[in-house]
Amino acid sequence: MAFTPTDYQPYDFANRRHIGPSPAEMDEMFAALGVADLDALIAQTVPEGIRQAEPLDFGAPLSEREMLWRLQEVAEKNKVLTSLIGQGYHNTVTPPAIQRNIFENPAWYTAYTPYQPEISQGRLEALLNYQTMVSDLTGLEIANASLLDEATACAEAMTMAKRVAKSKANAFFVDENCHPQNIAVIQTRAAPLGIEVIVGAPEDLEADKVFAAIFQYPGTNGALRDLTSEMEALHEARAIGIVAADIMALCLVKEPGAMGADIAVGSTQRFGVPLGYGGPHAAYMATKDAYKRAMPGRIVGVSVDALGNRAYRLALQTREQHIRREKATSNVCTAQALLAVMAGFYAVFHGPSGLKAIAQRIHLKTARLAKGLEDAGYEVQPEAFFDTLTVEVGLLQTGILQAAVKEGINLRRVGKTKIGITLDEATRPAQIEAVWRAFGLVRKDEGRAEYRLPDALLRQSDYLTHEVFHMNRAETEMMRYMRRLADRDLALDRAMIPLGSCTMKLNAAAEMMPVSWREFAELHPYAPADQAKGYAEMIADLSSKLCAITGYDDFSMQPNSGAQGEYAGLLTIASWQRARGEGQRNVCLIPVNAHGTNPASAQMVGWKVVPVKCDDLGSIDLADFREKAEKHSDTLAACMITYPSTHGVFEETVKEVCAITHEHGGQVYIDGANMNAMVGLSRPGDLGGDVSHLNLHKTFCIPHGGGGPGMGPIGVKEHLVPHLPSDPLKGGVAGPVSAAAFGSPSLLPISWAYILMMGGEGLTQATRAAILSANYIAARLQGAYEILYTGPQGRVAHECIIDVRPFEKSAGVTVEDIAKRLVDCGFHAPTMSWPVAGTLMVEPTESETKAELDRFCDAMLAIREEIRDIEEGRIDAAANPLKHAPHTMEDLVRDWDRPYSREQGCFPPGAFRVDKYWPPVNRVDNAYGDRHLVCTCPPMSDYADAAE
Amino acid sequence: MAFTPTDYQPYDFANRRHIGPSPAEMDEMFAALGVADLDALIAQTVPEGIRQAEPLDFGAPLSEREMLWRLQEVAEKNKVLTSLIGQGYHNTVTPPAIQRNIFENPAWYTAYTPYQPEISQGRLEALLNYQTMVSDLTGLEIANASLLDEATACAEAMTMAKRVAKSKANAFFVDENCHPQNIAVIQTRAAPLGIEVIVGAPEDLEADKVFAAIFQYPGTNGALRDLTSEMEALHEARAIGIVAADIMALCLVKEPGAMGADIAVGSTQRFGVPLGYGGPHAAYMATKDAYKRAMPGRIVGVSVDALGNRAYRLALQTREQHIRREKATSNVCTAQALLAVMAGFYAVFHGPSGLKAIAQRIHLKTARLAKGLEDAGYEVQPEAFFDTLTVEVGLLQTGILQAAVKEGINLRRVGKTKIGITLDEATRPAQIEAVWRAFGLVRKDEGRAEYRLPDALLRQSDYLTHEVFHMNRAETEMMRYMRRLADRDLALDRAMIPLGSCTMKLNAAAEMMPVSWREFAELHPYAPADQAKGYAEMIADLSSKLCAITGYDDFSMQPNSGAQGEYAGLLTIASWQRARGEGQRNVCLIPVNAHGTNPASAQMVGWKVVPVKCDDLGSIDLADFREKAEKHSDTLAACMITYPSTHGVFEETVKEVCAITHEHGGQVYIDGANMNAMVGLSRPGDLGGDVSHLNLHKTFCIPHGGGGPGMGPIGVKEHLVPHLPSDPLKGGVAGPVSAAAFGSPSLLPISWAYILMMGGEGLTQATRAAILSANYIAARLQGAYEILYTGPQGRVAHECIIDVRPFEKSAGVTVEDIAKRLVDCGFHAPTMSWPVAGTLMVEPTESETKAELDRFCDAMLAIREEIRDIEEGRIDAAANPLKHAPHTMEDLVRDWDRPYSREQGCFPPGAFRVDKYWPPVNRVDNAYGDRHLVCTCPPMSDYADAAE
Repeated sequence: MAFTPTDYQPYDFANRRHIGPSPAEMDEMFAALGVADLDALIAQTVPEGIRQAEPLDFGAPLSEREMLWRLQEVAEKNKVLTSLIGQGYHNTVTPPAIQRNIFENPAWYTAYTPYQPEISQGRLEALLNYQTMVSDLTGLEIANASLLDEATACAEAMTMAKRVAKSKANAFFVDENCHPQNIAVIQTRAAPLGIEVIVGAPEDLEADKVFAAIFQYPGTNGALRDLTSEMEALHEARAIGIVAADIMALCLVKEPGAMGADIAVGSTQRFGVPLGYGGPHAAYMATKDAYKRAMPGRIVGVSVDALGNRAYRLALQTREQHIRREKATSNVCTAQALLAVMAGFYAVFHGPSGLKAIAQRIHLKTARLAKGLEDAGYEVQPEAFFDTLTVEVGLLQTGILQAAVKEGINLRRVGKTKIGITLDEATRPAQIEAVWRAFGLVRKDEGRAEYRLPDALLRQSDYLTHEVFHMNRAETEMMRYMRRLADRDLALDRAMIPLGSCTMKLNAAAEMMPVSWREFAELHPYAPADQAKGYAEMIADLSSKLCAITGYDDFSMQPNSGAQGEYAGLLTIASWQRARGEGQRNVCLIPVNAHGTNPASAQMVGWKVVPVKCDDLGSIDLADFREKAEKHSDTLAACMITYPSTHGVFEETVKEVCAITHEHGGQVYIDGANMNAMVGLSRPGDLGGDVSHLNLHKTFCIPHGGGGPGMGPIGVKEHLVPHLPSDPLKGGVAGPVSAAAFGSPSLLPISWAYILMMGGEGLTQATRAAILSANYIAARLQGAYEILYTGPQGRVAHECIIDVRPFEKSAGVTVEDIAKRLVDCGFHAPTMSWPVAGTLMVEPTESETKAELDRFCDAMLAIREEIRDIEEGRIDAAANPLKHAPHTMEDLVRDWDRPYSREQGCFPPGAFRVDKYWPPVNRVDNAYGDRHLVCTCPPMSDYADAAE
Repeated sequence: MAFTPTDYQPYDFANRRHIGPSPAEMDEMFAALGVADLDALIAQTVPEGIRQAEPLDFGAPLSEREMLWRLQEVAEKNKVLTSLIGQGYHNTVTPPAIQRNIFENPAWYTAYTPYQPEISQGRLEALLNYQTMVSDLTGLEIANASLLDEATACAEAMTMAKRVAKSKANAFFVDENCHPQNIAVIQTRAAPLGIEVIVGAPEDLEADKVFAAIFQYPGTNGALRDLTSEMEALHEARAIGIVAADIMALCLVKEPGAMGADIAVGSTQRFGVPLGYGGPHAAYMATKDAYKRAMPGRIVGVSVDALGNRAYRLALQTREQHIRREKATSNVCTAQALLAVMAGFYAVFHGPSGLKAIAQRIHLKTARLAKGLEDAGYEVQPEAFFDTLTVEVGLLQTGILQAAVKEGINLRRVGKTKIGITLDEATRPAQIEAVWRAFGLVRKDEGRAEYRLPDALLRQSDYLTHEVFHMNRAETEMMRYMRRLADRDLALDRAMIPLGSCTMKLNAAAEMMPVSWREFAELHPYAPADQAKGYAEMIADLSSKLCAITGYDDFSMQPNSGAQGEYAGLLTIASWQRARGEGQRNVCLIPVNAHGTNPASAQMVGWKVVPVKCDDLGSIDLADFREKAEKHSDTLAACMITYPSTHGVFEETVKEVCAITHEHGGQVYIDGANMNAMVGLSRPGDLGGDVSHLNLHKTFCIPHGGGGPGMGPIGVKEHLVPHLPSDPLKGGVAGPVSAAAFGSPSLLPISWAYILMMGGEGLTQATRAAILSANYIAARLQGAYEILYTGPQGRVAHECIIDVRPFEKSAGVTVEDIAKRLVDCGFHAPTMSWPVAGTLMVEPTESETKAELDRFCDAMLAIREEIRDIEEGRIDAAANPLKHAPHTMEDLVRDWDRPYSREQGCFPPGAFRVDKYWPPVNRVDNAYGDRHLVCTCPPMSDYADAAE
């Protein structure tokens, strides 16, 4: 053996770390598919006519280490000053135990939305804790499991109020003391719905002229006022009262519920979630029990399982947009689960005494700061404050702001003569002294102050009384609680999650690391631009690469979820239509197999949804499309299509669909949900798309976090660029869609890192591998199951739909039975009953190895045999492994009276032997949970009952 | 409810995060113990006469966030340059997946040494992978599971060779081309054993005059030579050949086994383990099958469990010092398990092709560097090299070194006229060019070079052929493999580990975080002092605080394990005795209940161990002690005692023991293993101790890592300061005991952070809480079990011994049965059969909550009832839950023919219901494993056999 330099590339992230099938495995897969190579398969799958002209070229891909060096270089261009800007964003002390065991733990961040409750009990409990916390602190009966940010939560509250208010008025009152970004997003959302927004002082509220009103508490200038009388006036006028409240302040002051508010919203960022230059973090919403069915977002509830044991699950799912479709009035889909979990753990970690002590300290620090300024003769407002002061400084404004920056502190510029200062739990005495210096005062912080809250505004009620908030506060106990919850769940760190349309691919450790760096984590969203040059450089480069990938001309990073991206895209189109004098255009063509968020988003921009038929193959019925376009030619605003289709097929007619739309004056929105089948092969911008959103949490590796965060930036063609969402603080043609200019920017390093490490060729290879894996599964299952919808050459795109409907008749086996049986095999079920009821949609992604694909196929084939046993009478139709699935240790330890063995029940093909995943509950009874709705932590006595 | 500032301290790390029992829980515990408060209990427990005069006072404790700010401040004083110093330490690219999922994952780092194999299968498999890697790469049949560092491994190889060599010679030959730190540590170790060390060129080896010889491969100057003829000459003289080989080079060049070496040692640091300013990282040792029983350190082997399934366990434990005691010739105890696991995963991650490619790239970069220097006329040595060059530069030496520093690079100063340069996998072309610039050359790295290895030295054999090294290289697969292994183990992140004498306390997340910071992780141990000012500041402050805690005058951080600390302490004493002209003193008094490492350490400094009796209460028999001291008055070197005693009692006589020793010219070594019972209450230096080591991985929160790393710094009284271990590169009175001046310094931030966050009062409260918890357990179990050894007032110290010996007679139940039954209850067993055979020693530490203590007591009391069932004939003595413990899912799924129910078997009191920990194997057969010794990964065919 002489010295022959090997051509093995040890740091090849694209081909050997990110893409699952090894070259040797790919060869086996080609053989199974009867193709010579990947080129041949792609030729059979992706029509020549839609292929992109030039391959992607981003230069040489970086190794993991090179990528981290590059990110570090960019990170160092962000200057981390102490932010005392406030305005809804605060420094916070993330408990290290939460950072390490939740935020940086793949068991939490790689999980999917808990639609399958049996494998999601851990995060469901964590989210129930969060809901209980919100419900308690706001003093309202029910809370959801988070919304995207406070500004969108305000807008959601407005539209919810519109739904439930008995008042027939059409105006919405907004306290002028709301944060500017909240007002801006409310205005964006109100306009297309024809809601009149009245911004004014609370004193000017005319309750009988509005269907609802919203107040900031404390106000953006820091003022705290009791809103009870406003709420009473509203109620008298049968209107709805909304309070946007600071969650930390609520630990000390009178809660919205006690003032009579109907809805409360706000941000939970300051409960341990880093600033991240604007996100991600979790907004909350709480309301009265009477309005619970009108509340947007996901709600975790309590139910029982097949053995009668307590089990958690998502409640009231029938409210969700994917079910309501054309009737939906909110497109909320992604939540901020991971961040809600963190905020909930922060409350568990500190408990009510800890939270109260933290809030008191913040207030007393602010009182000390105020005293110092007042002693020196400054005019400090307001009288009653929690953590925020507004100081009149006249001509000194710029000088003081600059002096503060020299002290390493950002203050808030308010109007032309004022300065805002907001303190937080991380503020140190030295920083209070530094602020004084910036104001020209040399003074020592003696650590003493009188409180400045009027007695009448102090909170009278208890909160967080449930035992979970009264655990022993030892880290040992907290750490084990987090571990126990994590262990109850099945996430990507244990098994493939083959959810069609969800693209559960690898979230590589290297991609995740920069998110924790302080240069990305500790920037305030409204920090001066010259302190965020690293972000600017990253966003510019990421945008240009996404443009090259999609064929668009510019990107907006503002939408912080996929559905938000759809909405922003349609707003952009609407703004453009108005600008060219075609504001009457309000019809949106949407094929019936579209994502449920599509019609919901169209509703939100005030458009009329006109459904378009699909043919037997699941493709758009071109004749119907043409007919509808012609019929609505004068009012056609846009069409919304998904490519490849939600049926998993590359339709050859896509360009024609786009051309027809354009011909009739419409714009084409191509939903980017399936972009993982396109990157490097085909560009929506080339097909005729005018706008697309990308789900960075699908195709570009941001983890799903157990149901959020997400990022849904939109790409547009040149002519739409002026109509992209505008900066929430600066205004612009189109208005903002979320609170921060770049949505949840601290997630962007993940997608950027992914692209840097993959390079153009690697990204393309990932797409090809995703298609290969989907076709491999289709080929292995074909025969046992029917694969719905294939292209002309019998191939699927990056996912495939398995038809299990016949088994309901032949064996009484439902799609749910199969999904639950897959849990026994150690898998998260594929997407159930979407886009076709009664089917399973499987998307393996490129990141799974052939061994894992085979494990899944083995499981599915074995399940087919179990169905056959029922069909052919070898086992009882009511008592069989499918009906009893999933099996738990409770089943094993009990008496076993089933017509199959424990071994058969618990270790079907696919299941690991030693490392088997055991679901902590048996099949969950969803109907029971909706009938007996409990959405906060149940009292411990209930647990005792359940155990008996 | 008015505004009353709460006195709750939300950031109180000491009392509410670190210490388990809450104030309310403590009250309950006082009631159970019948004491009024903690003061009263401590008064009953710790004799007045040994209490320290002044309370510890380190000023105000820091919150977690304040501590991290302080650490960041200090970290920034370390300057991270690129090190090309080499000399056994190299930059490496830690795969982020390994960093996040192993290094920063409490499931791995909080685990204990895998003495209980049933709950350690994950890390045992990971260590077996490591052993297989070492065995393959060195070409020797058997490897151990790691040693402390390369220098101590060289010394261990020397003493092992002395044991096995048939040659009667007394000299040990050391290649002068060995790394200086290796030579220095060999010399330290050889001197007290009377071994003559001959340092010379390989050409000068006279094989018949030595019992063994060691060669560095490649040499410290970079030279590679075939050592076959040297090995042959040694074998002819019946002497042993040792090679200290670079693990990365072995991927490319002829392996030690192929040259005929008997023993190979080296460091695995460059397999993905950060430099850490010197450690921790894992040294390896491999040898021929014939010598396996003489090899020091732990060895993982393969065996079977009660159902005949494959199971791993530690093999050949009878070789260990705790069993051999006076006969031991090595005190090796702690290994570097966590770091060995990382290095093993690095090999799994890259596989043989990846490792070979990495080694080739390193070599080719070095060849390019050499070519550039040669082209410019520099004299570059050696002819055949792997990654290291030595360049003759004459008077330019200092100028070039300084120019390199300006380029951000550290080179090695060799002699007065040479410069050493060592490249590694992280070296980038820009850095090669920077080196050239430092040498005055402007040259572009074209990325091309000829290889410079002679064909005869190229490796001919395959390596890493086992399937585990041929897994799919996708991160998805790697991540899941790491998770599966982690899940098989029970560590502190799931349950209390009440191991007596091991102090398994909380390793707080905040304490762990700085270890990953590059300012601590990426410093070379021999970096210039002005680049390590942060380390210097931290070490100085930590030392002064440890002095205040112990009553000593100075500390050495060099010993990188507890046993190493003992050895270093005795060396210090011996050096002092010699210096005062009492070199003849060579008797060491050691009570029979001492830690097994004590006599082993005494042996290593060439002393004669004289055992001292204990009385019935487990305390030192004072009369016997006095008699022995008098008898050996002329030759008494030292006594070694443990305080409080290993029996868990504060002996009142300790000062007298010290006085007697001093009276007879001896020095007092107080073993610090039980320091967790003393901090803030009593100081060994005040009791009469002259030296103590502290186990920072026990009392000061460094995690156990599944069997290492550890840190065993020693504190000494003033007169011994000049005799502390010297810097391995600078020499000194006493010589060095490990390769780096400060042992494993990257662990020190953990202990420092702990002390900063606890403060003096917090540390003292921790000690008191540890004593409280131990007494609470003793009180709850008293009656059901007998508590051996209590103080005069019936109290134990921080641990207690539970006597289970009577049950062997009464019910045939052994201590092992109880230990395994505790696994069913979800606990790691207490320490078994030490210090008293057939008993259990329980140490809860201060970090466990009362709920967890109660869970343990409930389990123990239920086990007592199970024993009673046997005693009273209610259940069969052979077929009962104790004999079948631990129970696995395999038991559950099989037919159940036992005279107790599945429920009783699997869910005894203590066991969690939903979150139960299931051991992956049934009881492991130790004897089988030692009879059929397999210490590398078995072939897959064996697995198939076992499955059938």
